[in-house]
Amino acid sequence: MKPSRYEEAGVSIDAQDRAIEGIKDHVKSTETDRVLSSIGGFGGLFDIRFPQMEQPVLVSSADGIGTKLKIAFDADRHDTVGQCLVNHCINDILVQGAKPLFFMDYIATGKLEPHVAVEVVKGMAVACRNEGVAILGGEMAEMPGFYAAGEYDVGGFIVGVVDRPKLLGPDRVKPGQKLIGLPSTGLHTNGYSLARKVIFEENGYALTDKLPGMDVNVVDALLAIHLAYFKVLEPLLEQDQIAAMSHITGGGFLDNMPRILAADSDAVIHTKAYQVPPLFNFLMEAGGVDGEEAYRVFNMGIGMILVVDEVHEEAVLAHVRKTLPGSCKLGHIAPGSGKVQLT
Amino acid sequence: MKPSRYEEAGVSIDAQDRAIEGIKDHVKSTETDRVLSSIGGFGGLFDIRFPQMEQPVLVSSADGIGTKLKIAFDADRHDTVGQCLVNHCINDILVQGAKPLFFMDYIATGKLEPHVAVEVVKGMAVACRNEGVAILGGEMAEMPGFYAAGEYDVGGFIVGVVDRPKLLGPDRVKPGQKLIGLPSTGLHTNGYSLARKVIFEENGYALTDKLPGMDVNVVDALLAIHLAYFKVLEPLLEQDQIAAMSHITGGGFLDNMPRILAADSDAVIHTKAYQVPPLFNFLMEAGGVDGEEAYRVFNMGIGMILVVDEVHEEAVLAHVRKTLPGSCKLGHIAPGSGKVQLT
Repeated sequence: MKPSRYEEAGVSIDAQDRAIEGIKDHVKSTETDRVLSSIGGFGGLFDIRFPQMEQPVLVSSADGIGTKLKIAFDADRHDTVGQCLVNHCINDILVQGAKPLFFMDYIATGKLEPHVAVEVVKGMAVACRNEGVAILGGEMAEMPGFYAAGEYDVGGFIVGVVDRPKLLGPDRVKPGQKLIGLPSTGLHTNGYSLARKVIFEENGYALTDKLPGMDVNVVDALLAIHLAYFKVLEPLLEQDQIAAMSHITGGGFLDNMPRILAADSDAVIHTKAYQVPPLFNFLMEAGGVDGEEAYRVFNMGIGMILVVDEVHEEAVLAHVRKTLPGSCKLGHIAPGSGKVQLT
Repeated sequence: MKPSRYEEAGVSIDAQDRAIEGIKDHVKSTETDRVLSSIGGFGGLFDIRFPQMEQPVLVSSADGIGTKLKIAFDADRHDTVGQCLVNHCINDILVQGAKPLFFMDYIATGKLEPHVAVEVVKGMAVACRNEGVAILGGEMAEMPGFYAAGEYDVGGFIVGVVDRPKLLGPDRVKPGQKLIGLPSTGLHTNGYSLARKVIFEENGYALTDKLPGMDVNVVDALLAIHLAYFKVLEPLLEQDQIAAMSHITGGGFLDNMPRILAADSDAVIHTKAYQVPPLFNFLMEAGGVDGEEAYRVFNMGIGMILVVDEVHEEAVLAHVRKTLPGSCKLGHIAPGSGKVQLT
């Protein structure tokens, strides 16, 4: 057989076919009854009749996994990062009260390794099934010369829906309301460039070492899966018990909370209200990261902050603690100027 | 001022802020009356009431630009690749009869250069405005150590809508129907790894050289913008004059046409029905790419193929030729087995 010139140029249609074959069942496992298409056609088809809603509004977001991927490469463990990406996307639209509907991905690599791509998509499928989200499509791009051997990048896109009268946000936030913090599992998907520099480069830890005060080794700590909060919060959304919420990702408390504050309100956060996990204390101490920066780069152990009316505080806390025992009373909304007060 | 440890780790919140500031007006310029949110909030909000439709169905697709980006890097010209990506996405859902609604992007780079990111998004905005698509959001990820200096990758995600009874596809394709080819501007976004190998590596051309038989230099030929066909075809879709269509991207005629063929039909394509542009002839001859592979890797001068009833053929051709004079009668559908016959 004549060798393919395209293969010689570094693009393998065969690898592409094998990867598609390998992801098929994983993608299929996420199908919901709103999906009208199957993998292999052109675009993904999705039913958007919501007769029970007054005015259905789509909520969309795009995101990546950042340099958490480097940990996956170093550990050669590729089945978790897809979960982190999906869950990150879910949380990003959840803060507006949206129920996630479907997800799509963009995976790019220099040389396509079908088994790696399959692991990544398998992770996405796990997260999607857990939260009732369909994988509606995606792109796997083989781009010779773009990525180092064994490396890849992944972008994710999510679309959800909210009934417009139930849209959450700053217009519902007012002084006197309470803040409830939901625990994160670790860094989630933010601050990895700094964490890697501190842990590996400056302090010489290896993936299999344990950091001071931690039970798990570095690789397990750093690959801990970004939590999705939709299923936990869905009943509270249905009962209108949440006024607003903030997903604590890049920007930490300090940049994310202001996005849900009215111009005349501050968020007062009691940093002593919960135990900051050892990982964050280590990063601050060993890395010389001061409090101002730590609360901007890292989530500091809190993955989501809910704003609730005082009357709902205890019920909401009791509900979330059933699934997330580390949830805590984190502070309140006070008259102010749209800022965060760390106390 | 104390230096930021995050900056030292290679992530600049300042560069991020400047990039967001720079793209703001471009993104804003694409807003349609269905967009209910503005940049800077969490997710993008989109109104999906379509009272004039029987059953509105969303059609989605994800895509990238592939190694066409390398040409943009080499030429330091970043305002066209975003157009290619948006247009590629538009065409991918157009083949099902969908009107594009909104677009989101994922831009990843090693060191964020705000002016480059702004040029990329500016290109997206141009394409979106041209075709009436809103940029609803996106992610700019700075990932130290992931990309070579001056390089980046971009993924795109589009959502459109079609009224279910108007969905196009294989079930509408039958023997006797005619094929109409719409011209491409060049490689569009496929086959660049092979084209670059042939042109630069094996034949030593420079970006400013001209290839045999071509009026423009290599960089202009290779950065030619992927055409979007939505606006041209919109009136034909409204009049139900198209049965199906195939976007000729990766896989060429040979892999894309079968996706719209019923199991008992073949597509008979007359390769002599139009003049194959000199770029493709050069790649075949200088690159030793045989016909079988050329028609699988490259679009060979045809960016979109329409399948129309014989009764509509002349009217459709006259309409598309007003905007795309190079459009041609390309063949027909014959009884067969779901294959492409190149004659």
